[in-house]
Amino acid sequence: MITLYDLEFADGARPSPFCWRTKFALAHKGLAWQEVPIGFGEKDKIAFSGQKLVPVIVDHAHDDKPVHDSGRIAAYLEQTYPDKPLLGADPAFARFVSNWTNSVLHAGLFSLIVGDMHARVRPQDSDYFRQSRAKWLGTEDLAGFQAAARASRLAAFRQSLEPLRLQLRAGPYLSGEAPAYPDYIVASAFLWARTASVFALLDDADPIVAWRERMLDLYGFRDRQKAAA
Amino acid sequence: MITLYDLEFADGARPSPFCWRTKFALAHKGLAWQEVPIGFGEKDKIAFSGQKLVPVIVDHAHDDKPVHDSGRIAAYLEQTYPDKPLLGADPAFARFVSNWTNSVLHAGLFSLIVGDMHARVRPQDSDYFRQSRAKWLGTEDLAGFQAAARASRLAAFRQSLEPLRLQLRAGPYLSGEAPAYPDYIVASAFLWARTASVFALLDDADPIVAWRERMLDLYGFRDRQKAAA
Repeated sequence: MITLYDLEFADGARPSPFCWRTKFALAHKGLAWQEVPIGFGEKDKIAFSGQKLVPVIVDHAHDDKPVHDSGRIAAYLEQTYPDKPLLGADPAFARFVSNWTNSVLHAGLFSLIVGDMHARVRPQDSDYFRQSRAKWLGTEDLAGFQAAARASRLAAFRQSLEPLRLQLRAGPYLSGEAPAYPDYIVASAFLWARTASVFALLDDADPIVAWRERMLDLYGFRDRQKAAA
Repeated sequence: MITLYDLEFADGARPSPFCWRTKFALAHKGLAWQEVPIGFGEKDKIAFSGQKLVPVIVDHAHDDKPVHDSGRIAAYLEQTYPDKPLLGADPAFARFVSNWTNSVLHAGLFSLIVGDMHARVRPQDSDYFRQSRAKWLGTEDLAGFQAAARASRLAAFRQSLEPLRLQLRAGPYLSGEAPAYPDYIVASAFLWARTASVFALLDDADPIVAWRERMLDLYGFRDRQKAAA
């Protein structure tokens, strides 16, 4: 059994894209896990990990070993549970997809849903979320920032996803015939959005939508997403 | 021996990024090749390949087999000359880097140097180049388009390369400790620019510059680039 510390918003929503990466990795490996939800103000719950960011796992089958950082967790799981390879034959591939996702997909997507995200955090985390995101965005008006982004940036955001569309021409998954960690990295970004916002990031006819549906069908994650109502 | 049909600009310059990919692949495999330069108006020289685009190779060691398309050439070389693996253990990696390069890097870079490129084509190809590129860009004023792009798009272009910078934090090459086809794909885009333009696409302090220098040191390609004077 593995314990996963996962960021919680209101109503039990768990949007953290980096925690989604770990949930996909655990499910891919066929490992059972239990989740401990923590709010933005409850970082003391993961102080034992020596840092303040989720995800953190504790592997009870291996002396309650704690591991933090989604990338390090993926590498730990691959080494400790080598069945059902997760990272593929070339770890540089997952690394590049992660670097692209972090710098392009996350940044573009965040602008488009930051107001909805703010509306979904737990009441006691609302001020912290607004003030910390204001430092990145230059304004505390997160709803206004989101509205402006939807008006001016949506087309560029969709265009920035062209590498995914081209990749999906070669097979049903970004990794080819079967899903692997690169797929989970990108899917986690979309699950981040879906658990906090109903905004249509993509056109229904976009081939990325069909792939996202395939990803939601894996491991029963469609029910786990707890989409914003 | 292999014959490579390579696109030629004025003064023997050979900017085609897809031909650079094939030159890198041949050099990586340690294969000897001879180049046949062709201009935009000389597609009849490669009519034997059944299509109109370079690169085309003819492998004289295997019944003068013709292969076209840089991706198919890389796969052919990997299969036919398996020593010194080129594509890495996971072909989806090179595919994703190619898809990113084609849709992001090439598009951004082309806007910034299209005027310089036009100035470098062979005189007899000048009208063809201007008219064909005007269809993509919406104007025949390629120099004006370039000037406007340099004024308005350079910062966004540099920002779009962030996945490369993040990737290079993990090792000297995009592929890790040693260069492989993903490095060649991206380096070929920069060689495309360098053979036609002296415009500073990158800030000197950019870690991508140091990587580009490492790529130019491979296989003596620094001399091959025939940079615009």
